[in-house]
Amino acid sequence: MRATMIHAPFDIRLSDVPDPKIDGPTDALVKIVASCICGSDLWPYRGENPVAEPRRIGHEFVGIVEEVGAEVRTVKPGDFVITPFVVSDGTCPNCQAGYQTACQNRVGYGTDLADGGQGEYVKLPFADGTLVATPEVPDDAQIPSLLALSDVMGTGWHAARAARVKAGDTVVVVGDGAVGLCGVLAASRMGAERVVALSRHEPRQKLAVEFGATDIISERDDAARDAVLELTGGVGADAVLECVGTGQSMTTAFDVARAGAMVGFVGVPHGVEPPIGVMFRRNVGLAGGAAPVRAYLPRLMADVLAGEIDPGKVFDLELPLAEVAEGYKAMHERRAIKVLLRP
Amino acid sequence: MRATMIHAPFDIRLSDVPDPKIDGPTDALVKIVASCICGSDLWPYRGENPVAEPRRIGHEFVGIVEEVGAEVRTVKPGDFVITPFVVSDGTCPNCQAGYQTACQNRVGYGTDLADGGQGEYVKLPFADGTLVATPEVPDDAQIPSLLALSDVMGTGWHAARAARVKAGDTVVVVGDGAVGLCGVLAASRMGAERVVALSRHEPRQKLAVEFGATDIISERDDAARDAVLELTGGVGADAVLECVGTGQSMTTAFDVARAGAMVGFVGVPHGVEPPIGVMFRRNVGLAGGAAPVRAYLPRLMADVLAGEIDPGKVFDLELPLAEVAEGYKAMHERRAIKVLLRP
Repeated sequence: MRATMIHAPFDIRLSDVPDPKIDGPTDALVKIVASCICGSDLWPYRGENPVAEPRRIGHEFVGIVEEVGAEVRTVKPGDFVITPFVVSDGTCPNCQAGYQTACQNRVGYGTDLADGGQGEYVKLPFADGTLVATPEVPDDAQIPSLLALSDVMGTGWHAARAARVKAGDTVVVVGDGAVGLCGVLAASRMGAERVVALSRHEPRQKLAVEFGATDIISERDDAARDAVLELTGGVGADAVLECVGTGQSMTTAFDVARAGAMVGFVGVPHGVEPPIGVMFRRNVGLAGGAAPVRAYLPRLMADVLAGEIDPGKVFDLELPLAEVAEGYKAMHERRAIKVLLRP
Repeated sequence: MRATMIHAPFDIRLSDVPDPKIDGPTDALVKIVASCICGSDLWPYRGENPVAEPRRIGHEFVGIVEEVGAEVRTVKPGDFVITPFVVSDGTCPNCQAGYQTACQNRVGYGTDLADGGQGEYVKLPFADGTLVATPEVPDDAQIPSLLALSDVMGTGWHAARAARVKAGDTVVVVGDGAVGLCGVLAASRMGAERVVALSRHEPRQKLAVEFGATDIISERDDAARDAVLELTGGVGADAVLECVGTGQSMTTAFDVARAGAMVGFVGVPHGVEPPIGVMFRRNVGLAGGAAPVRAYLPRLMADVLAGEIDPGKVFDLELPLAEVAEGYKAMHERRAIKVLLRP
């Protein structure tokens, strides 16, 4: 089969690799229907994470189950499945508590145990603990929104949940990537009265408004803080979603938070040092991390299938898998918010 | 009057200072009935916070109102009052949201606007936003527990609340000072099923058990972590109260937290760097800060007056104000958990 590999920074190639096959009792083999490129895939692409040797990449996909191991109970061949961005056993105490990303037997994609997600097939273990099947095979038009549940929508939801967004809140979302935009959608669904999106890019501003943003702030850093304080009578936001992962975005998140607020963070931290003095003096908390999208999948899948949310709108470029390298380039250059790939 | 001053590290003296007097419409003049020494007073005492010049010290006291300014409505001469450890206006958005320690007009004790709390009298502004009067003048036996509400009990309560302790939880309390012990009491009152106190000192272990600790761990650092993991089947605690404020205590707090747990922190941070990688990977959050004890005072006061809690047990040494220097020495040398001073 063909699968995407990263060879070095800015060197993405679709390559021929051995066909995967079931070899364990909890395995599933999934034929990919659609996959996508994650903001976090850009860290190695840009050389900000090391690429020691060529390796498989990709961890967001949906597909049709081809075959399952002898012990798999909840999915069967022919099912359409959504896959969270990590493989979890579903039975350890962390999974049972709803934190599947901290599964004690967690498996990443693009490893010996699970194929990378930007290819034609994926073999993965712990099928019951990981995959969620739709009630029936969905329409083609529903696929982008279901695919968004494998990471960005669940991650945006987690940011809002970690920030403890509640009805009536004023919420600021830092970051206008696909996760930030899904954070806007999540905060809006949770009943936030005012959702302030920090964005300088017109197409993203537009989508933020479609997703429920009531205010757009195009300033950055200190100017963004001043604008939020002006909007909130000098008080700051009740909840802040930090959807980037850099030191600067975290600083902005704390700058715009009111006393007693929570910052929900979901961007993989790169150079982030939480400002402990500010946290202490103003009682601003920090929670979040790798989003347990598996925990949110049943609920968000129902919302998508009922037509209540359409997070698939974050995909503004669709390419054949053969053009995966162009997909990375388009996201790196911010020509695309998020790229959907079809084999 | 006489008031305690710190002149330099390890140099505490009771000195004659000018008598305070009402000079603003929101002022109150309080005659101190009992005051005490805070763990945070030990930072300058030990030279870990600078002492640039001699200054008043102390911020925990109870007393009788002597006189109030023209606009004061909620307390009157003759009332017995409990004072939170910061002065707050009670009207700004942060006060209204229950975060009086982040009051936009916050005043500290031992400043030009409010006298230090280890003396004979204190004049302070914002009497209505700060002081809480008991329904009647309490018995002498109730005074230690009411005094504990001015800081340590409210602070321990805040740690438990920030850590989101709920019924049935396993809670670890890091720190066996008065705040940590009150954290044990708070977690127990909130319905925690298991409250694990980290303590190596027998009198503190004993009090922890009186306050509801179900397990005592006398190991430290990595050994403490191992002991907690053993107690919890390798999973860790549902909630952790960090009641010290050092880098090591924060490390221990995160080490013993289960995936998805919250660390509630109330120790003034000294050399603390939250472990953002652990926070991300295991979804362990951090919240807390300077405790808004004013918000908890009505509830906790009712509990004390009803005899349901007795946080005053943390006072294991009572001295006349004239011996305040010995009080500091006893706490510094850990001969006393907490020292109560009577003028």
